[in-house]
Amino acid sequence: MPDSAVDPGQWTCPLPLRETTRIVLGHGGGGVLSEELIENLFLPAFGGPGGAARDSALLEVPGGRIAVTTDSYVVQPLFFPGGNIGDLAVNGTVNDLACSGALPIGLTAGFILEEGLELEVLGRVAQTMGAAARCAGVDIVTGDTKVVGRGGADQLFVNTAGVGLVPPGVHVGPERVRPGDNILVSGNLGLHGVAILSVREGIDFGTAVTTDSAPLHGLVAAMLAAGGNSVHALRDPTRGGLVAAVVEIARAAGVGVELDEGAIPVPDTVASACSFLGLDPLQVANEGKMVAFVAAEDSEAVLAAMRATPEGAEAAVIGRVLADHPGMAVGRTRFGTTRVVERELGEQLPRIC
Amino acid sequence: MPDSAVDPGQWTCPLPLRETTRIVLGHGGGGVLSEELIENLFLPAFGGPGGAARDSALLEVPGGRIAVTTDSYVVQPLFFPGGNIGDLAVNGTVNDLACSGALPIGLTAGFILEEGLELEVLGRVAQTMGAAARCAGVDIVTGDTKVVGRGGADQLFVNTAGVGLVPPGVHVGPERVRPGDNILVSGNLGLHGVAILSVREGIDFGTAVTTDSAPLHGLVAAMLAAGGNSVHALRDPTRGGLVAAVVEIARAAGVGVELDEGAIPVPDTVASACSFLGLDPLQVANEGKMVAFVAAEDSEAVLAAMRATPEGAEAAVIGRVLADHPGMAVGRTRFGTTRVVERELGEQLPRIC
Repeated sequence: MPDSAVDPGQWTCPLPLRETTRIVLGHGGGGVLSEELIENLFLPAFGGPGGAARDSALLEVPGGRIAVTTDSYVVQPLFFPGGNIGDLAVNGTVNDLACSGALPIGLTAGFILEEGLELEVLGRVAQTMGAAARCAGVDIVTGDTKVVGRGGADQLFVNTAGVGLVPPGVHVGPERVRPGDNILVSGNLGLHGVAILSVREGIDFGTAVTTDSAPLHGLVAAMLAAGGNSVHALRDPTRGGLVAAVVEIARAAGVGVELDEGAIPVPDTVASACSFLGLDPLQVANEGKMVAFVAAEDSEAVLAAMRATPEGAEAAVIGRVLADHPGMAVGRTRFGTTRVVERELGEQLPRIC
Repeated sequence: MPDSAVDPGQWTCPLPLRETTRIVLGHGGGGVLSEELIENLFLPAFGGPGGAARDSALLEVPGGRIAVTTDSYVVQPLFFPGGNIGDLAVNGTVNDLACSGALPIGLTAGFILEEGLELEVLGRVAQTMGAAARCAGVDIVTGDTKVVGRGGADQLFVNTAGVGLVPPGVHVGPERVRPGDNILVSGNLGLHGVAILSVREGIDFGTAVTTDSAPLHGLVAAMLAAGGNSVHALRDPTRGGLVAAVVEIARAAGVGVELDEGAIPVPDTVASACSFLGLDPLQVANEGKMVAFVAAEDSEAVLAAMRATPEGAEAAVIGRVLADHPGMAVGRTRFGTTRVVERELGEQLPRIC
């Protein structure tokens, strides 16, 4: 049989991870493997409108629209500089709602606990959740607790689901992104991932790096007040970092993305820690940052509104949307050259959130 | 110091479980220890309106009310006669919403997976969830997947949160229960717990017992159509079984409960399995049953409506609400005597759901 007769139907991906019949850590990494799991396993199984691929789903109810989201948290260690699994869970869910332009109206808390966990640990986590919820102006309205035997789970996992109200007239989503939009980020990248890694690995990076975990619904409200419907899409760059956030939007919107690498705010401590560890700061998780796609004519006004908030003081314009290379992101380096920016297959840092 | 000078403030409960500084399996059992954890740890930490003690919470939105609920599922084994963790999770959340009289409009699915889990296992669970959701007429609208290393979790845990619409005019809750109400149950008790135990312990009870896991929003809609606001309160008797369900309502409503033990439908297979294992069938978990507190004048109509549905064909009136002994339940035995019916401290069967 001549070489040209290769049947493309018989082709299998050479990457060993994609041939696995088992779950690997990367399936939870928020990168390419996570997407494959969603597209090839969950969406066909669940059917429905495909909302399972989004951070939050919109539901029509009498009188308006609500946003619904869920996230489980398995971060290790449970406590880290600047926070713990409790405020991470609350802020993460508040921020997923904020990505739809929604204001949170209720959170749920579902705990899975390992037998033998110290009640004091649970108590501190719960107190932190309560404080974070009050800070975000939302109640934890219902909960659930399951306990598994020793060795059946690693200390404490928590799921937070959230419900938010989308104000009338607000429409934020990848489908609204257009070539010409500017891309904004609300501040310094990489802090959460480096903070976790510093305690997990016992590495001292010279300067204390603390998580950036924070609720961003106030920031988003300020952006919407300044930019209205010129704020086309929002995404919090958690697992997979900035790169995953912009590539996901590019794929969903069918557009290309160009990032000005020199304009992306990365603190020196994060840059040197990442250099030491062989990580890409643009792929490290953040828990208190927002990436926004904004119509060019209003992006200065939105940027000014972001900078007027504490969460957005370091906000910057970091790129733009192109009609070229749909579904892909390229980075323009400090030397003027461009490179394709690709998502991780799995994840750089397991159990980062 | 004379005996009479004992300071009651120094008294500590003699039960060792209550003196623990650590999580024990019983904290997830849906009994007294679960309640203590909620009242002494979660509610003080979360603050808010105290909704965290309910199966589902009601939120006011423009145009109406929505119900919100969450449950994590850690059942072992994952597959059992009549179902698996997937339909259990969907039905459980649909039923928690139904307990508020709500119709489900969206479910979320949050997975925590152990590295090495076979994709086929996850695929079968997800397919079952999808089928169960379609059966209940609701979409799984968003999801999340985290993966932990080998030994960090036991195969697969799933959290399902749900959002439901409460129809205008429907008000179902423990606060509406009154002395004189009749107590109804929708069918045979104990099937889920015995089905799980039969496979977990490899015990053959002679006749195959399968889980009763089923969505009950249709049953509830039929009850509300027949009884309207005479349907005062609903509770699905899951962890802790019938006893936990009625004691929780009695405590929340400040009323007493009397059960006619001879009227409670318990299949012979369940009764003999429980007798063999030393379990109380009234405390074994069910996943497709509903307990209802209904004004006496309409309870025959509601019972007839229940019996006209497949899920409620074996429905029965099993007791009544009293003004006496508030917060307590008593059972009237087949011999006419009464006994106090108390919840388990922890749980009879860990990881039943």
